Amino acid sequence: MEEQVELVGKAFVDHYYHLFDNNRLSLASLYQPTSMLTFEGQQIQGGDGIARKLSELPFDHCQHLITTIDSQPSSSPGGVLVFVSGNLQLAGEEHELKFSQMFHLIPTLLGSFFVQNDIFRLNYG
Amino acid sequence: MEEQVELVGKAFVDHYYHLFDNNRLSLASLYQPTSMLTFEGQQIQGGDGIARKLSELPFDHCQHLITTIDSQPSSSPGGVLVFVSGNLQLAGEEHELKFSQMFHLIPTLLGSFFVQNDIFRLNYG
Repeated sequence: MEEQVELVGKAFVDHYYHLFDNNRLSLASLYQPTSMLTFEGQQIQGGDGIARKLSELPFDHCQHLITTIDSQPSSSPGGVLVFVSGNLQLAGEEHELKFSQMFHLIPTLLGSFFVQNDIFRLNYG
Repeated sequence: MEEQVELVGKAFVDHYYHLFDNNRLSLASLYQPTSMLTFEGQQIQGGDGIARKLSELPFDHCQHLITTIDSQPSSSPGGVLVFVSGNLQLAGEEHELKFSQMFHLIPTLLGSFFVQNDIFRLNYG
């Protein structure tokens, strides 16, 4: 069970940041109308609003470099909590930014997962 | 509702780190047998084991200085997800350590909350 939860967390993180770094608008597919994002303290609800927010961030291209992934089963049936830390490299910027992010993944009827909760913070040096 | 969730998050964070910085063993009261902690990648289950782990950390005294608190309702009835960033000052150490931590709080029958999920990471500069 714990191993399964770790596999889900790692697979999700790979998929999420690959989409983020290559096609941000497609992240909408990972959220649902009930989903919540808190991005640097700003709260947004619903997949469309979340994908719009992420696509309007003021940089064209970025790359996430993941440092740690910690996953736990949540008390929602089949749910998984994923906690990520890493570096964010923005195109044209010399220095990387450190970030932390957490996701609450909930199983879909199709055997996949969607993001119910998403909280993102830059860790200012 | 959202305001209530933020109040719960802030009150919990105040309480948790006050206990941590003043009487680490008493943190056991905030966990239950189902609770999970992942501390710098190490997984521990159950309030007794978690409190023992926290009380055995290799420093006598510390102070948490909180930078950000982000809270969202979870999909567990009455549950709250809390995401914290801040600095950890260890007694006798010159430099503060940056940390991020997330909690999944679940209501108790007595109208309080316990910590079901707890993930802690230092953010190495």
